[in-house]
Amino acid sequence: MAFPEEYKDRVKKINEYLMRSLDIIENKNLKAAMAHYPAAGGKRLRPLLATIVSEAVGGKPEAAIPFGAALEIIHNFTLVHDDVMDEDDTRRGIRTVHATYGIPEAILSGDALFARAFEVALDSDADDTDLVRLVDILARSVRLLAEGQQMDIDFENAKTVTSADYMKMVELKTAVLYSAAARGGAVIGRGTDVQEEALAEYGRLIGLGFQIWDDVLDLRSDQQTFGKPVLNDIRNGKKTLIVVQALEDLHGPEREEFLSVLGKKNAKQQELERARDILENAGAIDHATKVADGLIAEAKKGLKVVKNQTHKKALSDFADYLVKRKT
Amino acid sequence: MAFPEEYKDRVKKINEYLMRSLDIIENKNLKAAMAHYPAAGGKRLRPLLATIVSEAVGGKPEAAIPFGAALEIIHNFTLVHDDVMDEDDTRRGIRTVHATYGIPEAILSGDALFARAFEVALDSDADDTDLVRLVDILARSVRLLAEGQQMDIDFENAKTVTSADYMKMVELKTAVLYSAAARGGAVIGRGTDVQEEALAEYGRLIGLGFQIWDDVLDLRSDQQTFGKPVLNDIRNGKKTLIVVQALEDLHGPEREEFLSVLGKKNAKQQELERARDILENAGAIDHATKVADGLIAEAKKGLKVVKNQTHKKALSDFADYLVKRKT
Repeated sequence: MAFPEEYKDRVKKINEYLMRSLDIIENKNLKAAMAHYPAAGGKRLRPLLATIVSEAVGGKPEAAIPFGAALEIIHNFTLVHDDVMDEDDTRRGIRTVHATYGIPEAILSGDALFARAFEVALDSDADDTDLVRLVDILARSVRLLAEGQQMDIDFENAKTVTSADYMKMVELKTAVLYSAAARGGAVIGRGTDVQEEALAEYGRLIGLGFQIWDDVLDLRSDQQTFGKPVLNDIRNGKKTLIVVQALEDLHGPEREEFLSVLGKKNAKQQELERARDILENAGAIDHATKVADGLIAEAKKGLKVVKNQTHKKALSDFADYLVKRKT
Repeated sequence: MAFPEEYKDRVKKINEYLMRSLDIIENKNLKAAMAHYPAAGGKRLRPLLATIVSEAVGGKPEAAIPFGAALEIIHNFTLVHDDVMDEDDTRRGIRTVHATYGIPEAILSGDALFARAFEVALDSDADDTDLVRLVDILARSVRLLAEGQQMDIDFENAKTVTSADYMKMVELKTAVLYSAAARGGAVIGRGTDVQEEALAEYGRLIGLGFQIWDDVLDLRSDQQTFGKPVLNDIRNGKKTLIVVQALEDLHGPEREEFLSVLGKKNAKQQELERARDILENAGAIDHATKVADGLIAEAKKGLKVVKNQTHKKALSDFADYLVKRKT
């Protein structure tokens, strides 16, 4: 059984814990808005990672479920607020929270999810010193996520965005939460300081790989496989690594043609596909897959702190999955 | 020297700590939006309360400054998000965050403030067990605040709102944070469990009194004294205790006239004043001041857990100030 099917039972437990954690909400409008994304499913990669790391350093995987659920709740809260900021009406085939319940509800339910995440993290079976560590990890992560989201907003109006800018933004906006999942798992599993640092770095690297692969899928997948509309990043003018790289390499009429479609909200399918082909021909998509593969290889090197071969393989498979997935 | 002038030095320290706590933010757009309200000043009532309670149970007042600042940051984050939800362009004479920086920035800077509040609370000089308590107090408070804000939103479309509904909403939306300030102060000052519970209840009661008095000021103050436009609650159709009470008592043409102005966004000053007079004549404003006074008296009874007479008087003065203030 390949990843992630082998974790089906664990994902089920995570989902049960996650949905149960919203039972405490009294107001039914608030609760419905809060549950909208969590109930719509998801791969639960961040909670899974926390449980796998907890196990890898000698702890119980289940011990990391509350912290993992807290990460998932935070991830969902950022999706709710990001959708309002981006004015997106759909997310992975369902109506966004604000499109369904209104902007005030979306802002408020995001805030309530965020608050709830901290309560849920405190539900972890850990001593007070470790609970303080977990809270610190979560709070710091969201602060950095906000810095990343702000960079992303700033990019929209930036004249030039370099590869380094892009990597910094993805580090903050995506990698921080994967790193937090791994670090928190190491804290809960009571790994050594060396293990914690190495696994946090592993998490950071696979988080970067995850995002770059996501940008690739937007260009190379099809809507049915990907589960969401493709070529959306071009339409939205997103400065992904692929686009940034292509803009460094492209010259003349191809560059002009690409720029004329990038960020064109009403671009026709044909224009989007032509822009995609320009990126493909410039080798920018291949380049991105190589960067992602390199990050995953680098991440796996850090796994030497995990002695048990089964657990090491689990983390290695997890890393590979992030840049092989089709969805 | 009357309250709150005697705490001038302490407020200065709170402000310094508060503003310094935002230094860590790297992105200057994000930082500017986050600092917009904290830099605009404020009475810092919640942090002050935390320091006074800490002292009253035998701790140092300064020890509660980080936790107090965390409460103030949370209070400010809710103002930023509430202003987006209410589409208000001004707050106490300054442009709101979203009016100044845009809606995405307002949502994001609110989230970042919220995250930062937890980091700041962890900066408290307390052992890990108490830090966990403080985090729990903050997280629970924001969850309940969200329930209160949702009730407030629900009220707008509700056919009838009772006094009990209103008190429940204010309890969640306002009293919870005053209660948290007092409870956190008791934890930091290492008060007994009995002191903590009694002072949390004192905080809850004065928080209710504070809000009811705020509703009174909106009707009886003038813009220059109050520091913000008056009669705004009528224009916005807010179901305050005063309005709820009046609607239970008013009949016939006065009721019709009042209802025709309540929530009328483009109401003329004369109409608003006439609506205010109807409330005044119905005795609803007097009734609210009596309820507020009763809550403050009740709160002060709970202060018997404070043995030192100076500290007891400080908390008694604090409670009185909340329903005597003109601004």
